Parts: sequence; structure tokens; C-alpha cells
Amino acid sequence: MKTEVGIIMGSKSDYETMKNVEQVLKYFGVSFTSQIVSAHRTPDLMFEYAETAKDKGIKIIIAGAGGAAHLPGMIASKTTLPVLGVPIKSKALEGIDSLLSIAQMPYGIPVGTLAIGEAGAKNAALLACQILALNDSDLAVKIETFRKNQTEKVLQDVL
Amino acid sequence: MKTEVGIIMGSKSDYETMKNVEQVLKYFGVSFTSQIVSAHRTPDLMFEYAETAKDKGIKIIIAGAGGAAHLPGMIASKTTLPVLGVPIKSKALEGIDSLLSIAQMPYGIPVGTLAIGEAGAKNAALLACQILALNDSDLAVKIETFRKNQTEKVLQDVL
Amino acid sequence: MKTEVGIIMGSKSDYETMKNVEQVLKYFGVSFTSQIVSAHRTPDLMFEYAETAKDKGIKIIIAGAGGAAHLPGMIASKTTLPVLGVPIKSKALEGIDSLLSIAQMPYGIPVGTLAIGEAGAKNAALLACQILALNDSDLAVKIETFRKNQTEKVLQDVL
Amino acid sequence: MKTEVGIIMGSKSDYETMKNVEQVLKYFGVSFTSQIVSAHRTPDLMFEYAETAKDKGIKIIIAGAGGAAHLPGMIASKTTLPVLGVPIKSKALEGIDSLLSIAQMPYGIPVGTLAIGEAGAKNAALLACQILALNDSDLAVKIETFRKNQTEKVLQDVL
Amino acid sequence: MKTEVGIIMGSKSDYETMKNVEQVLKYFGVSFTSQIVSAHRTPDLMFEYAETAKDKGIKIIIAGAGGAAHLPGMIASKTTLPVLGVPIKSKALEGIDSLLSIAQMPYGIPVGTLAIGEAGAKNAALLACQILALNDSDLAVKIETFRKNQTEKVLQDVL
Amino acid sequence: MKTEVGIIMGSKSDYETMKNVEQVLKYFGVSFTSQIVSAHRTPDLMFEYAETAKDKGIKIIIAGAGGAAHLPGMIASKTTLPVLGVPIKSKALEGIDSLLSIAQMPYGIPVGTLAIGEAGAKNAALLACQILALNDSDLAVKIETFRKNQTEKVLQDVL
Amino acid sequence: MKTEVGIIMGSKSDYETMKNVEQVLKYFGVSFTSQIVSAHRTPDLMFEYAETAKDKGIKIIIAGAGGAAHLPGMIASKTTLPVLGVPIKSKALEGIDSLLSIAQMPYGIPVGTLAIGEAGAKNAALLACQILALNDSDLAVKIETFRKNQTEKVLQDVL
Amino acid sequence: MKTEVGIIMGSKSDYETMKNVEQVLKYFGVSFTSQIVSAHRTPDLMFEYAETAKDKGIKIIIAGAGGAAHLPGMIASKTTLPVLGVPIKSKALEGIDSLLSIAQMPYGIPVGTLAIGEAGAKNAALLACQILALNDSDLAVKIETFRKNQTEKVLQDVL
Repeated sequence: MKTEVGIIMGSKSDYETMKNVEQVLKYFGVSFTSQIVSAHRTPDLMFEYAETAKDKGIKIIIAGAGGAAHLPGMIASKTTLPVLGVPIKSKALEGIDSLLSIAQMPYGIPVGTLAIGEAGAKNAALLACQILALNDSDLAVKIETFRKNQTEKVLQDVL
Repeated sequence: MKTEVGIIMGSKSDYETMKNVEQVLKYFGVSFTSQIVSAHRTPDLMFEYAETAKDKGIKIIIAGAGGAAHLPGMIASKTTLPVLGVPIKSKALEGIDSLLSIAQMPYGIPVGTLAIGEAGAKNAALLACQILALNDSDLAVKIETFRKNQTEKVLQDVL
Repeated sequence: MKTEVGIIMGSKSDYETMKNVEQVLKYFGVSFTSQIVSAHRTPDLMFEYAETAKDKGIKIIIAGAGGAAHLPGMIASKTTLPVLGVPIKSKALEGIDSLLSIAQMPYGIPVGTLAIGEAGAKNAALLACQILALNDSDLAVKIETFRKNQTEKVLQDVL
Repeated sequence: MKTEVGIIMGSKSDYETMKNVEQVLKYFGVSFTSQIVSAHRTPDLMFEYAETAKDKGIKIIIAGAGGAAHLPGMIASKTTLPVLGVPIKSKALEGIDSLLSIAQMPYGIPVGTLAIGEAGAKNAALLACQILALNDSDLAVKIETFRKNQTEKVLQDVL
Repeated sequence: MKTEVGIIMGSKSDYETMKNVEQVLKYFGVSFTSQIVSAHRTPDLMFEYAETAKDKGIKIIIAGAGGAAHLPGMIASKTTLPVLGVPIKSKALEGIDSLLSIAQMPYGIPVGTLAIGEAGAKNAALLACQILALNDSDLAVKIETFRKNQTEKVLQDVL
Repeated sequence: MKTEVGIIMGSKSDYETMKNVEQVLKYFGVSFTSQIVSAHRTPDLMFEYAETAKDKGIKIIIAGAGGAAHLPGMIASKTTLPVLGVPIKSKALEGIDSLLSIAQMPYGIPVGTLAIGEAGAKNAALLACQILALNDSDLAVKIETFRKNQTEKVLQDVL
Repeated sequence: MKTEVGIIMGSKSDYETMKNVEQVLKYFGVSFTSQIVSAHRTPDLMFEYAETAKDKGIKIIIAGAGGAAHLPGMIASKTTLPVLGVPIKSKALEGIDSLLSIAQMPYGIPVGTLAIGEAGAKNAALLACQILALNDSDLAVKIETFRKNQTEKVLQDVL
Repeated sequence: MKTEVGIIMGSKSDYETMKNVEQVLKYFGVSFTSQIVSAHRTPDLMFEYAETAKDKGIKIIIAGAGGAAHLPGMIASKTTLPVLGVPIKSKALEGIDSLLSIAQMPYGIPVGTLAIGEAGAKNAALLACQILALNDSDLAVKIETFRKNQTEKVLQDVL
């Protein structure tokens, strides 16, 4: 089974947000697998995930995490695949901690960071599609169509 | 002339930060062009840039902006190419305004956001390379080597 | 039909806040039209809106947006009409992202920014009226009366 | 002597920022007077200023203040003229206190808030011009020209 | 009727918080009057209140306000009586705007600022009592007793 | 020797800020003593200071501290004298940590908090004078004169 | 009765969070006592607690507090036992005030600070166990087992 | 050679801050080794470091990192030794990103977090000593003496 996008998240509760990644990828017909991989509770699995991702055919990894959100940055440290990070809204600080923990990476290990929460999850999927579409003209067409529909929908919105 | 990465920035003063994007791309032999495109002062140029980028062969756009940093998100609204955003450190608020203005995009128009300032600029270039390497095995090898060298360098650092 | 104030907002959900603009303008008998114009999902419509506003007789544009709130600043980049911005309270960060994205504009393209949420929406309408009243003595009288009534109402409030 | 724009600031040290308002107004040939009016140290003068502004022919008031920046909001409470607020960068908190003190006004008394510091000062002047240009076609032309020049300047910037 | 403490607040909705001031003053038998005085909607009343407070026998003023919370600082600008400020929790920003607007006063016009919300309201009353007790030995005894009881109560708390 | 105001600070480096308290008290002829009392490094001294302050004739305590600024609140927990807190600008976070640590006291132990840094130090002294003036008509006159002079000085400021 | 860990908290309402400390210590069979000790309302008890802790056999103190959270730092000032601090989520500012008040201690008096709220409470207990396990091989084994189980549990989580 | 404390830091530039850890440990005669271990650039070394620390006799690990500061939390995920984290002051955000990335760990993997910068570095060393002193009565005596000296020093400070 082909898996173009590897979706990982730090805990089961993050799935409420990260299922939005799946929905968008499904819409565009992009293959994916989702898995709980905790930077802190399963560090070895995390490293193994990162090390084997390329061989499994994964092209992009989307990682969601909240609070001291180390998962995206640590996955990125162990692979040269593009990694996109989704800051999960945290209990106390509304996700500003998650956003800073994911975005403020030092030179050498980049993570493309999206918005906090649901919008960020969906956009991570969309950005992954845009990346894949660089070499997939069918997908490129689908994205163009999605964009046009999205524009149309707004144009038809009535207050 | 081939241009795989289009680098744009809101003003001349942003070049101090954005020249780091160029340096990293040069290191990896990735072609690019750099240009001042201001979301607010040259909106038409911005739209034209976004609309014509694909036809010029640009595959990834890296946009740097500070304060009410609209450039990355607005470029993204007019192209389906992947857009990476670099928050420039702002005069008053240290770049937290730039970071939020770039990262907090609504669903439909993603921007992969990097860290504030120089590290973010370099990492935007690196992430662009990682994306391009998905279909460029030579570049992939270069990145692997860069990573190994980077690791070696840290291993040899003496306090 | 005369339209002195053009009200725009980034999405349908913003109407919950932006309907307060309408209510205040109605109270003062100032003509307006409201429309969904998304900076990110309908960028061309946004530019067209800005370019044609003056010819439609619009004198002031009030734009509401949340998160990476680019609508007010981008509209302002394409018109010389005064633009007032209303930061919509965002899901994660309570609107501080919206406020910074709207207020922290660079020199050359001003946006008069109001408070986050309902109070800001109402005050945008009121400020628009105060601007229009510079050349409309009837409206000026209405505003004076509104102010007096407002003061009276507080004076009669009993704890 | 005609005075279309009244510029006030809380202390002499604010002039470093507020002189930028003057420069822009001069460029556009808009008449103004500048004065130190402290909300806290000269409250009676502040009220008198607000009460007499309209009779002096002032059409727009631009008020700059830092820290617990009460001047713009309090001036607004005593006049129905449009008031624009410039948050001065504060010593400790970089102007985030000034921004919130000016922008977060309750319903009934609007202040159009600009960016923190020099850019905000210049943009307050520019927004004042845009407001005055609603009824001054010569000024409107000047602003259109300024905008075109501004765009030209960016287009000619070389990195 | 004696009024040692003047309690004022910007709007009726602030009474939910400010009634806690009353409860504590009642407990200590300190006379007070409460009134809605809006800095922005009733500026003249505010000045009159400040100017006449001393003659009415008021010794301390406790002012509560939220958002761009100008009431405590402006009252303080018009009286030499001690002014204590209570930051009301605001709708969008949890009261951090209120706290900064009240605490960050410039030299010359002090406001003794308490905590955000209910605890701050109660403590404003308590601090007022401590100030009055400097010249009221009966009140001083009551405060000592209150403190002892408070300590006792905690000592007897069982988990 | 009479000591109406007890000035304490957490470390020698805080004196740079706290000497401003002394200057203002001297101006008004209010007696004071200054001392380093560290909540963390001399906790017993702190308690002794608080317990003996009243007997030494101290009427008001002004405490300055930075970072995890516990001194004002802890002094307040051991005395029923009014305590005013001055947040010292901290190395990393510009004093926002100091401000929150001092202002956010729970019910039962109030601290009247002033602004971060020099302005707050001066205002603490001024507020202390205003409190003492409640029972010192000479001091009350001095404060009125100071205020008038302060107003005069602003009125004569020329830009 | 042996008491290896002393748990204290500023008020009864903190127990909702701090009971999580107890649960984890119970799981590991580490002895503890829990008590309300308020820095502000029972300062003498706090000092006595700190002074006698070592003699009671307490090895580690875990202190939870919210807002101006002085308890952990003040306890630490009066004992050389390791002190761990748990920032309780505060009503207004989500616990960022608690976190800064606990973490930003000056040199000389350290507090090991954990995360805001429930996770921090549990982790304080866990860190206490890890410290005790340095000299308790049975406990060390339990922790290793806990960690393995924790990892296993994540590995078996199904989305 | 005995190594009770393992000091690690993410990059050479962090040594400016982390050398303070060394100075304090030297003062107390506690053995240590210092090493650059980057979570992102040398992830394998980091894991190896964590896995072998216990066998090398290390009892406590002190990890300093800035920005997206993942080192302390990731080291903690791979060892059951106590880990203390030092947030390094970052270029853009003054270390608030570092603090949140280190402190906001999820349940299961604790990091005892100290203050941002130099004070935090010194206190990490001191807390490590306090932990080691639980089973080292000589060290316990040294700490008591250090504390007394520290207190004495403050008591003798003259303003």
C-alpha cells in the first residue's frame, strides 16, 4: 500500500485535531497512514519512524503536537523528508506554547509550521498536496479545481 | 535561466535577513531569483508575481516579511505553488507580530512558516531544498551530506 | 442606491461580529453594503472591490478579519479611501493575532484599527460616521445627540 | 491660520516619534499644529483642547502616547472629531502596553489606532490625508501620486 | 453621610466584579458610595467626581475598569487623593489589557494597581482599609483580627 | 530618627531603579530608610523587617523586586501596613514577569502595584506621599503645589 | 510515619490540581503528606514548614500555587531540600503569571518548575520519584517499569 | 573519573550561559562533564548520551537550550535520571519560547525547569547540588554554609 504522507501525533487526544489532515488528504486522493508517535513517551519509535519513512515511500511527514511540542522538530532531525508541523491548541496557553515550540527551530533542521488547531491541520494537508503536485499533474489540477471551488463558494455566500 | 525558488521580501531592509536564504540555496546549487515585492506598496506586482511564477518555472516561493506580514499569505492566495514564510524580526515587538501574521492562516491557503529571523531564513531555503529533493536525487544526496557534515561539526565542537 | 460605507469581512462566521457595524450605521442613517470578501480565498474579488469602491460612491471601507487578518491591510493597499479594520476574536489566541496583523502596518498603507470584537465593530461604524460628519452637518448633529444620550444613559444607570 | 490636523502628544520625548506625523502632513500640504497635551499632567488642557478643536477648524486629531496611553481615548471622549492614535514604543514593554491602551476602547468612543512607533506616526498622517481627501480633490490627486511614486520606488529597488 | 471610600466603575457590567469592593468595606465598617463613572462616556462627570471627592470627605478612590481602562489613571490626574485601580477581566484578552492600561502610568500620576478581577477588587478594599487604619486604631484592630482569622481559617482547612 | 516610609529592594542592582523613590521622598520632605532585604536570600530579615516596621514608626513600605518578584507580596503577608510594589525591569522578559508576580496577589494580602521601572519607582513615592497627606496638611499642600508645577512645566514645554 | 515528599499548596481550590501529585506518588509507593500552606495567609506556618521539613524526614517538597505564586520560591528560601513548583492555572491569565512567578527565581534559591496544571502536578511527583530513585533501587525499577508500560500503552493506542 | 552531573547544551554559543553551571558545581566540588549535544543536529548522540548516562555514573543531567528548546525534554524521554532544563535567552523572543518549550512537558516525562539565562544556569547547578546532598552530608553542609554566606553577604550590602 502506497503512503505518500505520514501523519503522526503525540497522543490520542490530538486526533480530534489531526483527523482534519486525513479528511483533506482523502479529498485529494493522496495516500496516507496515521499513527500515534510520542516524542516523549516513544522516542525510539519516533526515531525508527523517521529513519524508515523514506523507505516506506513516505514523501512528506505531518506531525501534530501540543505544549512542549517536540515531535515535529525531532522527527525532522532524523529525516531529510519535508516535515510540516501542526501546533495543537494546549489546555493552558491556547497553543502559543505549541506554536513557538514548533516554529522556533534552529538553523539546520527546518519544520514548515502551520496555524494552531483545525485550520493548521487542514492546511498542513493542503500544503503537502501542493508539494506533491509539483510532480503530479493530476493532483495539480485537483488543487486548482479545489481553489476555484473554494473561491466560488465564498462568492456565493450570502449574509 | 532556470529559477526553481522565487525569493521575495517586503522591503530592502528585509534583505539583511533574506540574503541568508540565498546563501543556503547557493550552497546546494539550487537556482533562484530575489526580488522586492511589497504586499502593500506593490500589490499588483505581487499578484502578477504569484500568477506568473509557475510559468517561469518557479517551484517554491519563499517570502519574508515583518510586522503586519501579509506577503507570504497573499502570495499563497494567488498560486498553488508551495509558499514558505519567513517572519522578519520587527522593530517594536521582536517579530511575534510577524510570526502570528504569517502562521495563523485560515483553511484553504497554507503557508509553511519558519522561525523568526536569520535561522528561519536559512531553514526556509533548506526546506525548499528538501522539497525539491523529492524529485532530484542529486540534491537529495547533497542534503544528506550537508546533514552529516552538520552533525560532524557539532561532534567536533570543543567547549 | 447610495453606499457610503463598504463593509467587508473574510468569512460568513465573521458576520456575528460585523453585523454590529450594520446596526450602528443603520442607527445613524448611513448607507452601506455588506459583503464577504476573503483576502485569501477571493483575492481577485478583493482587488476588484478595492479598485471599484470609489466609483461606486463608497467613501469609507470597514474590513473585519481574524487570525492572520490580511483583509484590511490588503484592501488599503489598493485604494486611497480610508480603511478601518476590525480584529475578529480568533479561536486560539483571543484575537491578539488579529489585532497585530491589522495594526502593525508599514508606512505607506494605513489602516485605522479598532478594538477586538463587538466593541471594535461598533466603533468602526461610529468612527466612519464621525469621518462622514466632517462634511454632513445633519449627521454631525445626530452624533452629538447620540453622544449626549449615551452620557445621559450612564448618568441614569443605577447600581 | 488654518489648522486641519491637530497633533498632540503626552510628553516632549514623544516628539521624536510624532515629528514623523508633521513631515508627512507637510509633504501633502495639510495644515497642522503640534502641541504637548498630557492626559495625566494637563487634564484640563486636554479637555479644553478637545472642546475647542472643532471651533478652531481642526478636522482630525492625531494623538500619540506611550505606556498607559490614555491621551487618544480621552481626547476622543470629549470631541466628535475623528481621533487617530499612535502607540509610542514604551521603555519596558516595547509598546504593546501603548497599543492595547489605545486600541481596546469600549463602544461609544472610537479611536482609529495605527502601528507602534514611527510607521504608525507616518500612517496616522497619511490616514488623516485620506480622510481629508474625501472632500478635497487636489489632496486626493496628491495621494494618488504619492502612492504611484511609492510603488515606483519599490519597483526600482535593486537588491 | 460619611463617605471614606469612593467606588467608581466604567459600566454597569463592572459591578459584578466591583461589588466585591463593597462587601469587604462593609465587613470592616468603612463608609463608601458606589457610582458608575465612565471615563469615555461621562468624562465631565469623571472630572467633577475627582474635583469634588476631597470636599465630600472621600479619602480614597477605588476605580475599576476593563480593556482600555482609563478611569483609574484619569481620576488620579484630577485629584491628589490616593487612587487604587482594579483591572476588570476583559472579553478578549483576559484582562491583560486592563492591567497594563492601569499599571503603566507615567511619573507624576500614580495609581496603586491590584490584581485582575475579583481578588483585585477585594484587595483594593483591603488596601484602602489598611491606609485608613494608619489613623484609625479601631480599624487597625479589625484588620489585625481579620488577618488572624484568615490565617486560622487556612490552618483549619482540611484537604 | 523618624522613618515614615520604609524602602526595601531585593538586591543592590535594584538600587539603580529604587533611588528614584528616595529622590521623590526627599523632594517632599518625607523621612525614609532604604535597605536591601531579599525575600529569597534573607527571608528571616524580611519577616523581621515586616514585623517590626510598625513599631519603628514606618507607615508605608515600598518594595522593589524583579523576575519572580516575591518581596512586595511577602512583606505584605507579615504586616498590615500598606505595601506598594515596584516591578524592576528584568533581564530577559522586560519586567512583565516582575509585574505579574507583584500584581496578581490573591485575596487577603494586597499590594498596590506601580509601573515597571523608574516611573513606577517615582510613582510609588508619590502615592506614599498622597497617602501620608491624608493626615498631614502641610504635605497635602506640597503635593498640590507639585502637581501645579508639573502641569505648568508641561504647559510651557515647547516642541 | 515516614514522609518522603511534602506536598503543599496555597489554597483548598489548588487541591483539584495537586491531588494528581498524590495519585502518582501513591502509584510508586512513595510516602507523602499534603497540607495547605499559604505563603500569603500563613507565612509563619510556611517558614515553620520549611524549617522543620528536613527533621521530619521530608526529602523533597512539591509546592503548587497560582497567580502571584510565591509559595514554591519562599519555601525554597528557607530550606536546602530540593523544591519543585507546580504552576496552577489562574483564573484570568491561564497560568502564565503562575509559571513566571515560579520559574523566574534569582540565583541562590532554585525551584525546579514543572508545566502549568495537571500535567505539571503529575510530573512533579514523577520527578520527585526519579530523584529519590537515585538512592532507592526498588523505586528505580518501578520507574523503569512505569516508563516501559507508558511506552507500551502508546504503542498499542489505535486511532 | 567520576561525573555526577552531566552538562549538555545545544550549541557552542550556549556555553556563554552554561559555563555558569560549571562555576557553581566547581564551587561545591561536584564532578561534572560538559558537552555539546544538539537535539536537532546530533539526535543519535543525544539518545546515546541519555542511554549511557546512568552507566557512566551520572546522577543528574542539566540541559540548556534556546528557541524551540527540545534538548532537555528529549534527553528526559530517554533516561530516568532527573533532568533539569535551562532556557537560554533567544535572539528574537527573549527566551519566552525557550521557557515554554522546556517547561510545558506532558505527563510522563518531567523536566525541572529553571529561570531564563544566567540565573537559571546557576540555579540548575545549585538544585543539582541540593539533590545530591540528600545522600551526601558533606555536600549538605557546604550548601548550608553557602546559604549562610549568601545571607550574610546581603546583610552586609550597603546602598
